[in-house]
Amino acid sequence: MHSYNDYLAMVNQAIADIHYPTRPATLYAPIAYTMALGGKRLRPVLTLMSCEALGGEVRQALNAAVGLELFHNFTLLHDDVMDRADVRRGQPTVHCRWNDNVAILSGDAMLTLATQHIERVDSRHLPEAMALFNRTAMEIYEGQQFDMDFESRDDVSVDEYLEMIRLKTSVLLGCACRMGAIMADATPADCEAIYDMGVNLGLAFQLQDDVLDVWGDPATFGKAIGGDIMNNKKTFLLINAMQRAQGSDADELRRWLADSTAVRHDKVAAVTALYERLGLRQLSDETIAAYNARACEALQRIAMPDDARQAFTSLIARLTGRQA
Amino acid sequence: MHSYNDYLAMVNQAIADIHYPTRPATLYAPIAYTMALGGKRLRPVLTLMSCEALGGEVRQALNAAVGLELFHNFTLLHDDVMDRADVRRGQPTVHCRWNDNVAILSGDAMLTLATQHIERVDSRHLPEAMALFNRTAMEIYEGQQFDMDFESRDDVSVDEYLEMIRLKTSVLLGCACRMGAIMADATPADCEAIYDMGVNLGLAFQLQDDVLDVWGDPATFGKAIGGDIMNNKKTFLLINAMQRAQGSDADELRRWLADSTAVRHDKVAAVTALYERLGLRQLSDETIAAYNARACEALQRIAMPDDARQAFTSLIARLTGRQA
Repeated sequence: MHSYNDYLAMVNQAIADIHYPTRPATLYAPIAYTMALGGKRLRPVLTLMSCEALGGEVRQALNAAVGLELFHNFTLLHDDVMDRADVRRGQPTVHCRWNDNVAILSGDAMLTLATQHIERVDSRHLPEAMALFNRTAMEIYEGQQFDMDFESRDDVSVDEYLEMIRLKTSVLLGCACRMGAIMADATPADCEAIYDMGVNLGLAFQLQDDVLDVWGDPATFGKAIGGDIMNNKKTFLLINAMQRAQGSDADELRRWLADSTAVRHDKVAAVTALYERLGLRQLSDETIAAYNARACEALQRIAMPDDARQAFTSLIARLTGRQA
Repeated sequence: MHSYNDYLAMVNQAIADIHYPTRPATLYAPIAYTMALGGKRLRPVLTLMSCEALGGEVRQALNAAVGLELFHNFTLLHDDVMDRADVRRGQPTVHCRWNDNVAILSGDAMLTLATQHIERVDSRHLPEAMALFNRTAMEIYEGQQFDMDFESRDDVSVDEYLEMIRLKTSVLLGCACRMGAIMADATPADCEAIYDMGVNLGLAFQLQDDVLDVWGDPATFGKAIGGDIMNNKKTFLLINAMQRAQGSDADELRRWLADSTAVRHDKVAAVTALYERLGLRQLSDETIAAYNARACEALQRIAMPDDARQAFTSLIARLTGRQA
């Protein structure tokens, strides 16, 4: 069993080895630019880890791993156009550095490039791998559409929110794990269990993201604290606060949501204090711990060597207790 | 062998049978809307025709045929966002009826839905079909990017233009023919020949489109004549005119290209007269006839029943001599 950093190095090498045609430059340069921005490479690492843990070899899973990372970065590229986001990983987004049309078309090409990497898996695994990939992609678009629909709704329930993040974020982590298992010729039961592990890890991971935006350490979080609060983003915290706040708390929350000229420090401090009064830090931690526990339970159902199980256990603990 | 209208009816039935989830409505309704707008369904019909002509059965090719029509409509949907086009087949485009974000995301979903239809071909044919589909998709994005790049260039050569339309339009017709041949277990030589037929048919078809915009019959063309001229669109005609015009003709062409307030009737009439003086109607007809002949030559290389060969010959003649 290799370490996270070993897998990361393999993934980064495979990404560096992708051959992009030189022309038309405005189609391929944004793809190379996006892939060179780096990141945790969590999805492809999960694919390689899952493959090796279930008795396969890394080289069998490398194409699929890179395909999933290309797909993930394609979704970020198009999401940044839709969200009008200017910065991604500290650099200008593609639609800012080039323009919207370049971002749309190079994103499309990136989705097909991702599919081409899935296409190159062993032909014996191709039908299952391709079906998993496409089904997951459709779920992710559904999640993104629900997320955009939520912006104009004030009655989003906690269950709807959890279903949205399951679709938008978590199924891709489940898919990454299952893809590695498929490449290792794992049993259907193991494929199912490792998928469950990935999905629950993803839910814990995304909720941790909501928590870090409020209570994260600015030094390690990598972006300014309170972005979600300033944007009235319907996170796990805001949706619960809208349901729980009563009396003067409810009035105060409504005022901050309506105040488009609020001073950042004041609004972030006040809403954070409100979240704390409503017990939402504890609720979040408990909810994250529950998904974490489900991920660990799913892991226990899978037959794998001790060192592999230990590696997954550590990764789950690290990702759902992460500070950045 | 069935008729074009038989194949069209089968394709339209299969498209009507596509099951779209009901939620999120803003993701799936634009896809259903786009597919219901109709059209010639040329690509899926070519797939079914090619499959049957080479000894296969229609039902073997139906998933791939629908996948290619979904893909074609996805490219139109995203192209309409990039070109800021308001109308498609007489109806508001998706980004006008909904908004840009809906058009981007439902287009992405449409591309994956297309890939899911290719994914559902017989697993024996899946590797070849998926590779052909993805390779063709990348070429089409390249063609669209070259087309956008040409807008800001005044030195586009005729060869560059022909390569652009080969990528943007023709390879999908070649792919549609080859896809049907693959489903019929045709020989590699027949697959190659029917691809060549489709590509050359596509080149003739696209040049005919440029010609119809200038000399088409408004009653049958379906849109106003002269749109390309008004938009200074770099067509086969304009690129040749920029190269051939001398002296006062060159001055006049430059003036019309620079005149952003020209009266439509005046500009269209003057540029059309200039094209005629420069012999471009004849040049276009000769070039179309040459691609038509190459398509027919490729057809002759393929072993197929007489009635199938006759059906392709008629279709080529009809598409490259079409008035609409």
